[in-house]
Amino acid sequence: MRATIMYAAGDVRVENVPDATIVEPTDAIVRVTRACICGSDLWPYRSMERTEAGQSMGHEALGIVEVVGRAVTKIKAGDLVIMPFAYSDGRCEFCHEGLQTACVHGGFFGNAGFNGAQAEALRVPYADGTLYAVGTGADEALLASLLSLSDVMGTGHHAARVARVGPGKSVAVIGDGAVGLCGIIAAKRLGSEQIILLGRHPDRITLGREFGATEVVTERGSEATERVLALTGGHGVHSVLECVGTEQSMNDAVAIARPGGAIGRVGVPHYEGVAALPTFYKNVMVGGGPAPVRAYVDELLPEVLEGRIQPGRVFDRVIGLEEVPDGYRAMDQRESIKVMVSL
Amino acid sequence: MRATIMYAAGDVRVENVPDATIVEPTDAIVRVTRACICGSDLWPYRSMERTEAGQSMGHEALGIVEVVGRAVTKIKAGDLVIMPFAYSDGRCEFCHEGLQTACVHGGFFGNAGFNGAQAEALRVPYADGTLYAVGTGADEALLASLLSLSDVMGTGHHAARVARVGPGKSVAVIGDGAVGLCGIIAAKRLGSEQIILLGRHPDRITLGREFGATEVVTERGSEATERVLALTGGHGVHSVLECVGTEQSMNDAVAIARPGGAIGRVGVPHYEGVAALPTFYKNVMVGGGPAPVRAYVDELLPEVLEGRIQPGRVFDRVIGLEEVPDGYRAMDQRESIKVMVSL
Repeated sequence: MRATIMYAAGDVRVENVPDATIVEPTDAIVRVTRACICGSDLWPYRSMERTEAGQSMGHEALGIVEVVGRAVTKIKAGDLVIMPFAYSDGRCEFCHEGLQTACVHGGFFGNAGFNGAQAEALRVPYADGTLYAVGTGADEALLASLLSLSDVMGTGHHAARVARVGPGKSVAVIGDGAVGLCGIIAAKRLGSEQIILLGRHPDRITLGREFGATEVVTERGSEATERVLALTGGHGVHSVLECVGTEQSMNDAVAIARPGGAIGRVGVPHYEGVAALPTFYKNVMVGGGPAPVRAYVDELLPEVLEGRIQPGRVFDRVIGLEEVPDGYRAMDQRESIKVMVSL
Repeated sequence: MRATIMYAAGDVRVENVPDATIVEPTDAIVRVTRACICGSDLWPYRSMERTEAGQSMGHEALGIVEVVGRAVTKIKAGDLVIMPFAYSDGRCEFCHEGLQTACVHGGFFGNAGFNGAQAEALRVPYADGTLYAVGTGADEALLASLLSLSDVMGTGHHAARVARVGPGKSVAVIGDGAVGLCGIIAAKRLGSEQIILLGRHPDRITLGREFGATEVVTERGSEATERVLALTGGHGVHSVLECVGTEQSMNDAVAIARPGGAIGRVGVPHYEGVAALPTFYKNVMVGGGPAPVRAYVDELLPEVLEGRIQPGRVFDRVIGLEEVPDGYRAMDQRESIKVMVSL
């Protein structure tokens, strides 16, 4: 089968690899119908040291179950499934608590012998725990939004939940990438009436406003802080969704958070520490991490199916599997917000 | 009047200073009946550079109101009052939200022209917002516990609240000082059944067990982590109360927190940053800061008055005002957990 391998920064190839097969009785094989390229894939695309074996890429997918192992009881061949970016057994205490990204048997696709999702098919461990069967026919128009539930929409929602977004809360979303844009959707549906987007790309800002951003701040650093404080009566926002992961973005998050406020961070940290003193003296809470998107499908899927939210609009380019290397280039050069792969 | 001034590390003196007087119509003058020395006073006691003017010390007090300004309407001369360690106007949006330590007109005693509480009397700004009148006669036996509501008991409670302590949650309290010990009281009354104290002083540990600690870990660093993990099924605790403020204690807090858990930190940070990656990958929330103890009096005072909690037991030495320099020495050398000043 064909799958995407990254060998070094800038060197992504679609190649023949051994077919995905059932190994454990709890496995399923999923034929991928939609996959995508993640903002987090751009970190290795910009910095990965060359390796001979390469790294299998992709962790978001929508697909059809081809075959299941003999211990799989809920998921069936033929099901249309959402594949969250992390696999989880569905049975441990963390899965029961809704933190599947801390599953004691869990992990991330593309590691530990599992190929990534930018591929024709993949082996999914703990199929009953990991996969979410969508109880509907595959309405073409919804596929992009369903795919977003495998990562970016659930991740934006996680940032909003951790940042305690709710009615009467002012919100700032740092980052106009796909996760930040989904964070706007999440903040709006959780009841916020003031949603400030910190971003600087005109096409993304336009979409952000359509999703519900009420103000846009294109500055960074102290100028951004001044703008946000001016927009919030001088105190800052109750909730910050930190959707980038750089030192700059985290420092900005701390600076614009209101005393007693909360920062939900979902950008993989590319910084050492979160500044201890300003967060302490403002009693600002910092939380977040890999989103348990599996837990959030229950809440978000009805909204997608009924058309109340349209996170799939973050996909502004659709390519075939063989074009994936060019998809990386397009996202890296910011020609595209997020690239969907259609198989 | 007599008041405590620190001139340099190790150099604390009780001296004559001008009498406290009403300056603003919202002021009250409080004659101090009980004050104390705080663990946070030991930081300057160990490191303060010499200054000619010195630093007025003390921020916890119980006292009798002597006189109030003409704009003070709730607090009356003769009231027995708890004086929280921060003053607050009681009117701004943060005060209304119960975060008086972010009051827009607030501040800390011993600064900005206000003398500290290790003194015969002090000027209290925004008396109606700052002070809490205790509606009871001054039962001698309760004074120590009432005094603890001005800081350490409210601070331990804040750590517990921020760390989301509740029934079914495992708790670790880092630090066996007065705040940590009060954190144990808070964790127990909020319903935790497993409270692990990380401390190493036999007298404090004994009191910690009496307050409700179910286990004691005397190690630090990786050995402490191993012990706590072993006590919690390998996953760590749901709630960490970080009551020290060193880099070591914060790193330990991060290491022993369960995925999805929360750290409530109330030790003034003597470290640069909170480690970004381990908190992120475990989805651990870090919050806390200067405790809004004024907000917590409503909840904690009935417990003190009815004898259900006895945080005043953290005071294991009572001295007069002139002996305050020796009180610092005793706390610095850990001869005493916490020293009360009786006037």
